[in-house]
Formats: sequence, C-alpha cells, structure tokens
Amino acid sequence: MFGFLRRPKVRIDIPRLRPREDAVSYPKVNLAELTPEVLPYLGQVAYVQLAIFEEVSDAIASAPAVAAKQALAPAASQALDKHERLVAEIRRRVDAPAEVIAPFTAGIDRYRSLVKGADWYEQLASVYLTAGILDDFFTLLAAGLPGDIGPRCVAILDAETGRTAIVDILAAAIAVDPVLGSRLALWGRRVVGDTLLVARSAIHLSGNPESDEQRIEPVFTEMIAAHTRRMDRLGLTA
Amino acid sequence: MFGFLRRPKVRIDIPRLRPREDAVSYPKVNLAELTPEVLPYLGQVAYVQLAIFEEVSDAIASAPAVAAKQALAPAASQALDKHERLVAEIRRRVDAPAEVIAPFTAGIDRYRSLVKGADWYEQLASVYLTAGILDDFFTLLAAGLPGDIGPRCVAILDAETGRTAIVDILAAAIAVDPVLGSRLALWGRRVVGDTLLVARSAIHLSGNPESDEQRIEPVFTEMIAAHTRRMDRLGLTA
Repeated sequence: MFGFLRRPKVRIDIPRLRPREDAVSYPKVNLAELTPEVLPYLGQVAYVQLAIFEEVSDAIASAPAVAAKQALAPAASQALDKHERLVAEIRRRVDAPAEVIAPFTAGIDRYRSLVKGADWYEQLASVYLTAGILDDFFTLLAAGLPGDIGPRCVAILDAETGRTAIVDILAAAIAVDPVLGSRLALWGRRVVGDTLLVARSAIHLSGNPESDEQRIEPVFTEMIAAHTRRMDRLGLTA
Repeated sequence: MFGFLRRPKVRIDIPRLRPREDAVSYPKVNLAELTPEVLPYLGQVAYVQLAIFEEVSDAIASAPAVAAKQALAPAASQALDKHERLVAEIRRRVDAPAEVIAPFTAGIDRYRSLVKGADWYEQLASVYLTAGILDDFFTLLAAGLPGDIGPRCVAILDAETGRTAIVDILAAAIAVDPVLGSRLALWGRRVVGDTLLVARSAIHLSGNPESDEQRIEPVFTEMIAAHTRRMDRLGLTA
C-alpha cells in the first residue's frame, strides 16, 4: 500500500536528542535499517501520542484536587500538540489520516489496557514511564526516515513533555506512604516489558534475525537504562 | 477575602464579540454592574474551561473511530489553552491558582453530571450547546472587569472553539437516524436551564432585585436566542 515511499538504503546518523527534563544520551547506534516506511511510522507514533493524551486527560479528570489537574494540564496539551503536528505531517502526504492510523489502534488500545494501572498513582507512574520509553524510541527510529521528515519528527517528539509534574505528584505521595513506593516500584518494572513489545512491533525487520538483533539489542539496552533513570527520578528501585 | 480588588463604579461598554464559528451579535447591554470581583471571575471561568476540556477529552476517549478523535482534538486543545491562559492571569495576581478555583469546583462538577447526557451523541450536543452559552456569557461578563483584564479575558474566551467538528459529527449522525434528532432536540432544550443557572450563579447581585432583573433579562434573552441558533446549526428544533 505504501510501497511508493521507499526507505533509502543510505545509513543516516541518529539525531542527538535535545536536552529536556528526562534527557538521555544514547550511543551512536544506527536504527536507519530498522525504520518502517514513512506513513506507517507516522500513523503509529501519532496514535501513541493520542493515547498518551487520553491517558493524561483521564488522570486529570480523576485527579483528587484541582491543583493536580492544573499541574497535569501541560502534559495533556503537549501530547495533543504532538499528535496534531504528526497528523499534519500525514495530511501533507495523504487526505485521510484516519486510514493511516487505523491499523495501529487495536494494538495500542490493547497495550493501554495492560499498562493502565489499578489506581490514579499507578496510572500516573505508567504515563511517565511508558511515554518516556516510547518518545525516546520513536525519536531514535526517526533517524531512518527519508528526506527532511526524520528531523521534523525529531523536532516534534523531542519537545517538552510537561511530565515533570508527575514526578512531583508521585514523589510527594511516596514520601508519606512507603507502601505506595514499593507497589509503584513493582508496577514500574512490570510496564517496561509490554512497552518494549510495542517498540519492537514498530520495527522494520530485514528478514535476517541475527543482524536485526545486533541492531536492536544496543538500542533496547539503552532504552532500559533510560527507564531505570526515570524510576530513580520517581524514587523507585528499578 | 478578595475585597481589596474593588469593582469600578464606572459603566463600561460591552466588548464586541469577534466573529467566530458560532458568532452572535448581542445588543449593547451593559453587564458592568453585574460582574463579580476579578479573582472569583477568573477562578470560575478557568474551571468552566477545564470542565469543557475534560468533557471533550472524555468524548475523544469514547469516540467510535479514530477520525472522530482527530476531529475533536482541536476542541480539547482550545479549551485547555483557554484554561491555562486564565490560570496564568490568576497567577499574575496570587501564588495559588487552585485556591482561587476551589470554591467553584463542586458547583460546576454537579452541573456537569446534570448535563453529561446518556450517550456519546448527547454528550457532544451538550458540549457544543452548553460551552457555547458559557463562552458567550463569560465574554459578556468580562466587560465589567477593571483595568485591562476585561479585554484580556475577552481575547482569551472569544478565540476559536474548535467545536465545528461537533456540528459535522452530529449532523451526519442525525441525517441517518431521525429518532436521534428528536432525542437530541429534547436534550438540547433540557440543558439550557441548568446552564443559565450556572451563569446566574456567577453574577454579582446589587441587592436591588428589580434593577438586577432589568439588567439580567435582556442578556439572558439574547443568550437563549444564540442557543436557538446553535440548535438550528445542529438541525434541531429548539
């Protein structure tokens, strides 16, 4: 369906992630050969951002106090802004963005139900941790996109997340309730597996499992290290 | 509590509403004497915008298809943007916006549960109709605010709503299901009363019921006329 948009065979350096609140420095791994076609990439990452928006909005709606609603508002608006800018990129190429996104909704919706959490705190921890992994992953994957769309996607994804408020809310709650901290530490370890499966599902495999693994492995190792640093920031043992 | 911020006794002309998708032309009524103090005004209208955001977000989350999610996204982001700009105005005056907003949350939350609707279509109709009334009302009320805060609030509130997508979604659904149209027409008539009660609760009464009614009545008559035009736009008999 999208075969007319060919992935270039040249190798492209990975863009450096610009500093942000959860900045990570990745090795110069090369994901160019693993990047899917432009439209499936845009469709999946656009829906991921919409899912982050919906999850934060849900947490805003169920927040126990208006101060928490306000603190979380920027995280919702940033994710929605990223979604809209990615949809604009799709619209520059095709008329019906919904059709480009549709193949990814069922998988992401299923994933969301797995990592949603049992209460407001697990939901917030999940948003912070899983959105952190997914933003990093799709930023790295953008390196393999042809033309100027790669840098454009990096600029969209690697912007403010607005999610430092989540760190503040969780740190305050854990400080007065160590049992919550233990529960969230377990929960934070649980969500990483399902999230890496989503990342893996977005990867374009060459058909040569050995070389694919050689490319994927260092990237995932770094993504798990970044996840551990996010767990630290929440005061949780990874 | 907010007595140090005095309402000016001069009469101020009502700002003209700038054209937008549901533009209305109001008579030159004067609401200056009815406008509450600055901080209660900002607190209430900020929470109204947050409520509109939450309701649209909820409709996005339960949308039957991704195309509808995308169509509704601008309505969510516009309401959230208005909320954040109003909170910024509060923050210019006091450190804790949440305390300014808190007195209004219970009333607005109760109102929301009254006008939420039984399904997705009633919810969308409610957002379009009630947010239209409330945006108009708080825009008119801004006329009585002292200094430059009135025009600033008008500029915030009288911006794009992003809600034309709701008209498109409902018109398409009603076109294939006349029974839905009848049900939404009833529903649209029901929500207006509770919404006008919210408006009335925001009004600063002088203590002279007769002169208060003389001021309020033409404004509410015009607001109901604008509501009727919105019903028309949805293809519903008011």
